[in-house]
Parts: sequence; C-alpha cells; structure tokens
Amino acid sequence: MAVALQAPTHLAPVQGIRLSTCAAGIRYRERDDLLLIDAGPDAAVAALFTRNAFCAAPVQVAREHLAKGRARWLLINAGNANAGTGRAGLEAARATCAALGRTLDAPAEAVLPFSTGVIGEPLPVDRIEAALPALAARLDPDGWMAAARAIMTTDTVLKGASRTIALDGGTVTLTGIAKGSGMIHPDMATMLAFLGTDARLDADLFQELLAAAAECSFNAITVDGDTSTNDALFGIASGASGVTVQTVTDRDRFAQALNALCLELAEAIVRDGEGATKFVRVTVRAARDRDEARRVAEAVALSPLVKTALFASDPNWGRILAAVGRAGVEEFRIEEVQVTVNGVGIVSEGGRAPGYTEEAGQQAFGEAELDIVIDLARGGAEYRKYTCDFSYDYVRINADYRS
Amino acid sequence: MAVALQAPTHLAPVQGIRLSTCAAGIRYRERDDLLLIDAGPDAAVAALFTRNAFCAAPVQVAREHLAKGRARWLLINAGNANAGTGRAGLEAARATCAALGRTLDAPAEAVLPFSTGVIGEPLPVDRIEAALPALAARLDPDGWMAAARAIMTTDTVLKGASRTIALDGGTVTLTGIAKGSGMIHPDMATMLAFLGTDARLDADLFQELLAAAAECSFNAITVDGDTSTNDALFGIASGASGVTVQTVTDRDRFAQALNALCLELAEAIVRDGEGATKFVRVTVRAARDRDEARRVAEAVALSPLVKTALFASDPNWGRILAAVGRAGVEEFRIEEVQVTVNGVGIVSEGGRAPGYTEEAGQQAFGEAELDIVIDLARGGAEYRKYTCDFSYDYVRINADYRS
Repeated sequence: MAVALQAPTHLAPVQGIRLSTCAAGIRYRERDDLLLIDAGPDAAVAALFTRNAFCAAPVQVAREHLAKGRARWLLINAGNANAGTGRAGLEAARATCAALGRTLDAPAEAVLPFSTGVIGEPLPVDRIEAALPALAARLDPDGWMAAARAIMTTDTVLKGASRTIALDGGTVTLTGIAKGSGMIHPDMATMLAFLGTDARLDADLFQELLAAAAECSFNAITVDGDTSTNDALFGIASGASGVTVQTVTDRDRFAQALNALCLELAEAIVRDGEGATKFVRVTVRAARDRDEARRVAEAVALSPLVKTALFASDPNWGRILAAVGRAGVEEFRIEEVQVTVNGVGIVSEGGRAPGYTEEAGQQAFGEAELDIVIDLARGGAEYRKYTCDFSYDYVRINADYRS
Repeated sequence: MAVALQAPTHLAPVQGIRLSTCAAGIRYRERDDLLLIDAGPDAAVAALFTRNAFCAAPVQVAREHLAKGRARWLLINAGNANAGTGRAGLEAARATCAALGRTLDAPAEAVLPFSTGVIGEPLPVDRIEAALPALAARLDPDGWMAAARAIMTTDTVLKGASRTIALDGGTVTLTGIAKGSGMIHPDMATMLAFLGTDARLDADLFQELLAAAAECSFNAITVDGDTSTNDALFGIASGASGVTVQTVTDRDRFAQALNALCLELAEAIVRDGEGATKFVRVTVRAARDRDEARRVAEAVALSPLVKTALFASDPNWGRILAAVGRAGVEEFRIEEVQVTVNGVGIVSEGGRAPGYTEEAGQQAFGEAELDIVIDLARGGAEYRKYTCDFSYDYVRINADYRS
C-alpha cells in the first residue's frame, strides 16, 4: 500500500514527442506492456544508466546506440528484464531494434531498447516484433498516461508529473513518467524514468542538468539498498517549442523545474516502495562535507533495524544513533550529535534529549511521514536521503514473488 | 528457531580462571544476569571492541582500565546495555567497577565492565552493587556453563565450546562462551565473547592471534549488517598450566585451535540469528585480492533481496548476480563469473549455467545449510562470509521487541 501517493489524472503533452502503447502479451494478460516513444528528428537527449556491473542486455545496447549519436526511438517493454540472459539476450535486444528500424525505415542504431520485468527469461522477440506495426501506426502526443501505465510492473500506483516553465522566450512543458517499487528487483526489475520537454537545449547542458537533478532525487532514494540491472533515466528535449534555454536565468528556471519533477517522481517510487507503510526523509546537517553527510544518511536509511523500528512506530532512537556511529565518520564525537524526528528532540549529548518523553517519541514515530534530522555539529554540509520502512510485506513480496 | 545448533552439555574448566553468576534482577526475573570472571593475578589478556563510534559506556571504561595494564576482573551484566546513556552512563560503569574493587580489595582499574541488553535505560547500579558480595564469594573454576547462560539476551541457545591443545610442553585447555543473535541489537545489544586458556602466552602474541582469529570468524559474520555499540571479544591466558606457547609449531597449533573455536562460536551466533531459518556460507574465490573478495561476499551476504529469496528457498540466482554486480569490482567482466550453490552450477558466462534446471536449483536452495560459491576468475584471493536468511520473524522480532 503506497504512502500518501495518488496517480496524476492527466499528463501534459510535449510538442514534438509522440508515444504509443500496445498489449504484446510479453507476460501480462489484457494490459499494455510495450511502449514506443518518438523523440522527433531534432531532439537533444540525455541519459543515465545503472552503475551495476551486471547490467542487462538492453542497457548495453542502448549505450552502444546512444554513442552513435542518432537516437530517436525508444522501445520499452515491461514483464521481461532481458537480464542474466548472456549473449542470446544481447542478440534479442539488437533484433528488436533492427525490426523496429525496418518498420519505421530507420537505422537500427536510432532505436534504444529498455526492458523491465522478470530476470533470466528469454525475451519473446517474436511477440514484440509482431506488435511493432500497430505500435508505429498509433503514435500520439497525448500518450503519456498510457505510457506510464504500460511500464508498470510491481508498482501499485501510476507515476507521472508535468510542469510548465516560463522562460525568457516563452513557456515550455516538462512531462515525466517513472516506474519502480523497490530500488531494485532483479525479477521485477527496476527503475525506469522518461522525461520529455519541448524546450530547445544543448545536449551537453541537458546531460549536466539531468545528472544534477538525479543526484538529489533518483540517486537519493533507497528501498532496500540494492541497485538494479536495468535502471535508466532518459531525457528528451524536442526543441519543438522553439524556446531555447540559453540565459543563466533560463537555465536556473529550467533546472529548478527539472529538479522538482525528478524529486516528485523519485519520491513516488519510495512511497510505492515494496511493503512501505512509512515515507521517511533522513536529513544530515552540519557535516564536514557532503560525502560525510551522505554516508551518515545512507547508514541510517539502509539499516534494517532502523527500518523495522519505523514499521513498528517504535521510538527506538538507539538504533538511529548506532547507525550514525557505524557510518565511518572520522574523529566523531557522538556527544555533539542532535537528532530530531518530526521536530521532537530525541537525542542530544550522546543520550536521550532533556525533556524527551516516550509519549512524544511515540507520537512522532507514529506519523506516516517522518522527517529524521541528524545534526553532526561539525561543519556546513547537508544531504538528504529518502526511504521507507521495512515491513512484513517487504519480506512477503520478495520471498513469495516467484511462487 | 536456530539452524542446526545445539548447546554444549559441558564446558571444560580452565586452570587459573574462576567464574560466578547471580540473579541481580537487572531486567529478567528468576535467572542469573550478572557474571564475574577472575582472570587470576598473572594472566595475559587480549581484547577487541566494537568499531562503532557510538560505543557504550562500559566499552569506554573497559578500554581505559585495560590501558592501565592491571586488568584481572571482568564484570558482565545482561539486560541493560548502558548505551546511549551519556555522562551518567560512564559514571554508572565506573561506580560498579569501584564497588567491586572495594568488595575484592582491588583497584577499580583492575575491573573491566561489560554490558548487554536494552539501550537508553539507566544502569541499575544499586542492584548490581547489592549483588557483588555474593558474586565474589562464589567464584568457581567450573562456572563456564552458568556464565554462558547468564549473558544470554535474545539468544535462544546457550553458546560455548572447549578444546584441548597438545603443545610441546604439555596439554592446555581453551574454553569460550559467546552471546549474540543478530549482528547488533542496540536494544538487546549485542555480541560478547569471552575465551580463557591456561596456556602461558605473551600478551602481544595473544592479541595478534586473537585479532587474526576474529578476522575469519566474529568479523566474518553478518545477520543484518549493523554493528553494535557493545561488541567485545575478550581473551584470558592464565598461564596456570605452566605450558608456554613459544615455538613456531606451538604457535600454529594454538592458533589453529583458537581459530576453530572462534569460528564455532561465531557460526553459533549466525545459526541463532534473529528469525534465521537457513545458515549460509558465501565464499568468493579467484578474486584479485582479499579486499575485493570480501566486498563481493558482503554485497551478497547483506542483500535483503538475496536473503528473502533464501528464506523462500527460491533459486532466484539473478539476485545473487545483481549483488555481485554492485560490489564495486573494477573492470569487472560478469561473463566470467561462475556461481554454484551446494555444488549445483547456477551461473556461468553471465547467464544461467548450461544444464541448470529449476528442479536442481530448487533442491539446492531448499537445504537448511547453503554453500554459495562465487568464482570471479580474476586471481587467487578468497574470502568467506557467514550469514542467515531474512524472514518474517526477523521483522517481527525487530519490530515488536519493545512493545
């Protein structure tokens, strides 16, 4: 059950970008599971892929094709990750690109493949190929909602958002969709997000802005600490609005909207985290540097003991302190650490904060959304990590999924 | 429910070392919860403590007193960790040492305090002090079984083992006890182990041998990846047998027995891991160096997705590969990795091993003890990590403990 998460009712079309979906029968019955996105002929694109060395065949092929500089078509399937499939998997991914190329009269390198779903099963290339003509015939600028639905796997809520951005030269649109419900599911792999804008953007600048936005959003979330074989974040700037992001002010406005949209989508993934009953922000303040703040935030956000206590709404603050203590901070003085949870002072001077009561702690930990703020009193750096709790349902979902 | 773990029926006394226990009523009713160990006047001691920066008050005081070089008495309580207790906790730990010193007519620095149990509660110094005269009057060389019982918290099985070692100068005894049922419990903290031998050992050599033994045993186990505020491993060499460990051969024999005993106790902790239904050895072979092997073994042994699949007896090998892939191995070629589970070939060349069948996989993953062997085909280094699965009961135990 997702934590305070609602699907959007509408996603704004983006000039120059068209989408279509269909039911190819890859794994699911009676639902769309194949998505085609046309970025248009003049788009600038930006992409971030998983850093897992065990990356899926489509990630390898998408990287190769992207390097050739002619990317225009994105072919995305749900229900099969095409991961752990060895050489045959690479051939399957290339075959679908070639088939779509033939259908569209485009070079195979103009097609980038993305897959999400069960690992270790052969990709049903025949069924995908059979669906391509219908898919190519149906492209529509207003296809974002259907697209968001077609890429869902274990997601319980459709994830997407739109923004309009007022720039010096006029207004542009930014729309994004995402899927994911656990930082990784090598069976129901994994996180995918696709963003489109009709702004005109230099490709290098777009890549830089997207990487910066991901750093504080998609790279700052954790459900179970695992990273995935298929993760991809892909941005398309069609340029079709004719409005260019050029001035420093425009750049800031665009970056701000991009950051906010990425954070909204990333938060949606955590709120829909496997078995999640709580949505948790872990903010580490007053660290010596950002890396130190990040390590402390990660130690807390990943600790199974902290996460099971959060599930139980148990103000078991010793677990938070113990996680802080093992984060490997040099010359650490635990006596200076302050911890608050939803504004309630929990820890100061290495022990229970003066005035803290079990009742106040229980009330704070009982909320569905928790802000844990850890002040290290060492410097000026800050980092925020987003996570959820660890419930019976997490074990159930991950233990029972294949049976 | 512990995995194939039985309590010893007897633990061999060690010449020169005496123990006593009593019920001080610290937290439990009608059971011993306080332990005194007398190392004797001429013992060499060796100790390893938690690396967690948030270490408990008794760990800080034990380190201080140890540094003064006069350690003889160990005072250990279960039921209260005296952690997260700030300055008052340090004063409480010092007060119990001073009180025992008065009882025994010994300096306070000759006493080392150890605590395990609930975090963040004041140590009941009065109740401990009231129990000291009876404790001091009851010291007995044959007290190891009662000692192992007195330090248990969430443990379901008493943990201890004895060895005799034939050295050039005669036979010596080595007996050890341990408690722990989760790598950390900041509430029911944590791992403690006490070893005694009547061999005569140089203190520096003993420290070196104990650290080496811990590296492949207590430091190679993980239940949930958290480390503790109170962890301590303490060795006493009373020298009372008159048999000295001096020659290289003696040293090897003693080290071998020490390593085996530490591994037996460390395995017992994992077998009694919170909610454990499987006992798992993760061996990484043919790595470039030991550190690389360790990182891969840890990534697999800590992955919640791997551990929930193990709980489900599900041959979900993609999760193992994905964990290997994110271990940060440089220039990693997943195509060369081989994985076997209980001798069944699961993965080769980046995909399912030829000849692998779902039936063979299910049978291998269905065993209560699992040997996962990951061959990286990159070099000659090896590392083994011991862990357990991740079950509903893990969540139940850690979510419900305080309520």
